Amino acid sequence: MTEFIPAGTQFFELPSPFPMKRGGALHGARLAYETWGELSPARDNAILIQTGLSPSAHARSSEANPEPGWWERMIGPDRPIDTKRWFVICANSLGGCKGSTGPASPHPDDGQPYRLRFPELSQEDIADAAHALVSSFGIEQLGCLIGCSMGGMNALAYLLRHPGSARGHVNVSGAAQAAPFSIAIRSLQREAIRLDPNWNGGDYSEDTYPEAGMRIARKLGVVTYRSAIEWHGRFGRVRLDAEQREDDPFGFEFQVESYLEGHARRFIRQFDPNCYLYLSRSMDWFDAAEYGGGSVAAALARIKLYSAVSVGVETDILFPLEQQQQIAEGLRAGGAQVQFAPLDSPQGHDAFLVDIERFGPLIGAYLRSL
Amino acid sequence: MTEFIPAGTQFFELPSPFPMKRGGALHGARLAYETWGELSPARDNAILIQTGLSPSAHARSSEANPEPGWWERMIGPDRPIDTKRWFVICANSLGGCKGSTGPASPHPDDGQPYRLRFPELSQEDIADAAHALVSSFGIEQLGCLIGCSMGGMNALAYLLRHPGSARGHVNVSGAAQAAPFSIAIRSLQREAIRLDPNWNGGDYSEDTYPEAGMRIARKLGVVTYRSAIEWHGRFGRVRLDAEQREDDPFGFEFQVESYLEGHARRFIRQFDPNCYLYLSRSMDWFDAAEYGGGSVAAALARIKLYSAVSVGVETDILFPLEQQQQIAEGLRAGGAQVQFAPLDSPQGHDAFLVDIERFGPLIGAYLRSL
Repeated sequence: MTEFIPAGTQFFELPSPFPMKRGGALHGARLAYETWGELSPARDNAILIQTGLSPSAHARSSEANPEPGWWERMIGPDRPIDTKRWFVICANSLGGCKGSTGPASPHPDDGQPYRLRFPELSQEDIADAAHALVSSFGIEQLGCLIGCSMGGMNALAYLLRHPGSARGHVNVSGAAQAAPFSIAIRSLQREAIRLDPNWNGGDYSEDTYPEAGMRIARKLGVVTYRSAIEWHGRFGRVRLDAEQREDDPFGFEFQVESYLEGHARRFIRQFDPNCYLYLSRSMDWFDAAEYGGGSVAAALARIKLYSAVSVGVETDILFPLEQQQQIAEGLRAGGAQVQFAPLDSPQGHDAFLVDIERFGPLIGAYLRSL
Repeated sequence: MTEFIPAGTQFFELPSPFPMKRGGALHGARLAYETWGELSPARDNAILIQTGLSPSAHARSSEANPEPGWWERMIGPDRPIDTKRWFVICANSLGGCKGSTGPASPHPDDGQPYRLRFPELSQEDIADAAHALVSSFGIEQLGCLIGCSMGGMNALAYLLRHPGSARGHVNVSGAAQAAPFSIAIRSLQREAIRLDPNWNGGDYSEDTYPEAGMRIARKLGVVTYRSAIEWHGRFGRVRLDAEQREDDPFGFEFQVESYLEGHARRFIRQFDPNCYLYLSRSMDWFDAAEYGGGSVAAALARIKLYSAVSVGVETDILFPLEQQQQIAEGLRAGGAQVQFAPLDSPQGHDAFLVDIERFGPLIGAYLRSL
C-alpha cells in the first residue's frame, strides 16, 4: 500500500472539494506533475501530455531527476516535443499511485489509505484535474494537448468538457469509447487481482500484496500491448538456456515466457493494485457518445480545434486503428484540419513508447506546423 | 479430480506399454471414442476427426447419447461429413479427461490419479494413440483425416509419423508449429492455474478444485478464441440490467463480461486442471520442423496425400491465417492437390465450431471430391 513518487515531482493542490463525475468529491486532493521548458510571457506555448494507465509524471529526465522518463526520446531540446519552444507539462493521472491522489493515498478523515473508499473514478475526473492544473499556470489555451492510450481517452474528455482549451491536439493510440474486446481484457485483469486472496477486498499490506493477481494482470496487459508479428520475429521458438529454466514441470522454457516474466517483475510491487482497478474500470466506462446524444461522431464534431493528428498502428489489438480513424473523422467534422496517421509499427499498442523513429517525426512535424 | 465421460462412449485399449515421445510409457491406457456410419467391407471409407483441446469424442449425437455433439451440424446423414458414405471416428485426445487416459485417470500402480506423475505429453503421443485406434478397425488408410485447432497440429504429426495413413486431409485452423504469441497466451493460462493456491502442485480434490485459476484460464481462452470485430457487433457497449449486476464495486456491468462469465461457469469443474496443463504445454512444444531438419516446409513436403484443404479465418489471433497458408504451401510441395481456404468468418479461432454456413459447404465439397 504505497505510492511510488519519482524524485523531483511537484504537486498541485486541486480545488477542494473536487467533485467527481460519478458522485462524491475529493477533499485536499493533489496532482503530481513535472514540467520542462519555459512558459512564454503570453502563456501560449504550453503542451499538456496525458499518460497511459501506469506512467508517472516523469516523462523526461530533469536536473532534479536524471533518470530517463517514459517518453525520454520524444521530449527535450530539438526533440519532437521541443522544449526550446514549448513549455511541457505532464501529470500523473488522478487516481494513480505515482504521487497524485488515488486509492493508495491517505483519506483526509483518518490518514489511512482510501482503498475502496475512493469514489468511482472516470476519465472525465482525470481530465478535469489536469485542466485545473493547467489553469493554475494562468494558461487559458494549450498550444497542444497530447494524449497517449488512456490519455487519448481523457484528452477527448478534456476537450469536450472545456471548450476552447486547446489549439492543437495529438491523439496517440486513443479511443472515443471502450470497445468490448478491450473491456473483456481489462475485466479479466481486474478479476485476476480480485480473485487473489491477498487482494482481500482491497485491504492488503506490503506483506500481503496480491502479487499473483498483479502478475497475471500485467502479463495479460503486455500480451495485448504488443503484437504477434513482432514476437514472431523477436522470439520465434527460441528456448531459454537450461540454467535459466525453472525446476518446475510447467516452468518457463521459451524466451517469450521469460520476457513476460521480466515485465511482470518490473511492475508488481511498483504499482498499487487498487489504483489499477480504478483506472482500468474508468477506461471501460469512457464513452464520448455521452456528449453527442448517443453518437460518438456528433460528440467529436462539437470539439473545436485548429488542427489535430490522430495516430495509431495496424498491429494494435487493444485500441485498434479503426478507433483512431473514428477520432480523426469526428474531429474533422468539427472543422479542424486533421491528419489521420496509421503507422506501420510492428509493436502494437506500445509502439508510441518504443517506435520513436516513426512517432517522433510525425509528432515533431505536426508541432512545428502549429 | 474427475473424468467427465459422455454416455455412449466406447473404449479402446492402447498397446501396453504405450511409449511416449518425450520419455516414459503408459501401461493399460485407453482411448475414449465414438463412431458414426458404417465401415465399408474394403475399409476405405473412414474419416478420423482430431479435436481441439477440450472436446470429448462426442462430436455428434447418437442413439446411446442424444445430446448434441460439439460438431453436430457438421456430421450426419446428408451433412457435410456425410455418415451415409463415411465411417466417422472421433476420439478424446490422449491426456484429456473425457474418458481417454490422462493426468486425471488412475495410475495403474496405486489406482490414484496420475496427476503430475503423468509422463510429458506431446502432440505426437495424441497422434500415435489415434493411429493405433484407427488400426484396430483394420483400416490401413483413412479416406480423410480431419484435424481442428490442436487437432490440426496432431493431424500433421499423424501424417508425418505414419506415412500413407490418409488419402485426404482437412486441416482446420491448425498450425505446423506453435507461435510465440500463442505460447504466451497459453503460458499465462497455465500460470493462472498454477498460481491458484488450490492447484497445490496438482494435488487438489473436488473440494479444493482450483476454480479461480481455471476461471481466468478459460476466460482468457475465450478472449483469444473469438474476435474483437465479432464482439463489437454482438455486444457493443450494452450494459447488464441492474438486477443482473453483482453487488461488488468491480462487478460485472457490461454484457461482454457476463458472456465470459457464462463460458467460465460452463467449463470449470467440467475439465480437469492438470489435463489442461498437459494438453496446453503439448501445443507449445509442437514443431513440425523436427521432421524436416529444422524446416517446417521440408517436413510438410514429406507428407504424401492425394489432396488436402487447409482452412482458417482472417480474424483468428491464436492460430493466425499465415499458419494455415504455411500448411497449404507445404503440403502442396509434397505433391498433393491443396486448397488454401481463408474464410471471412468474424468469429475468430472458434469459427469452425459456429460458422457452419461457411465451413460446412467447404468441407462437404472437398469430401465429395475424394
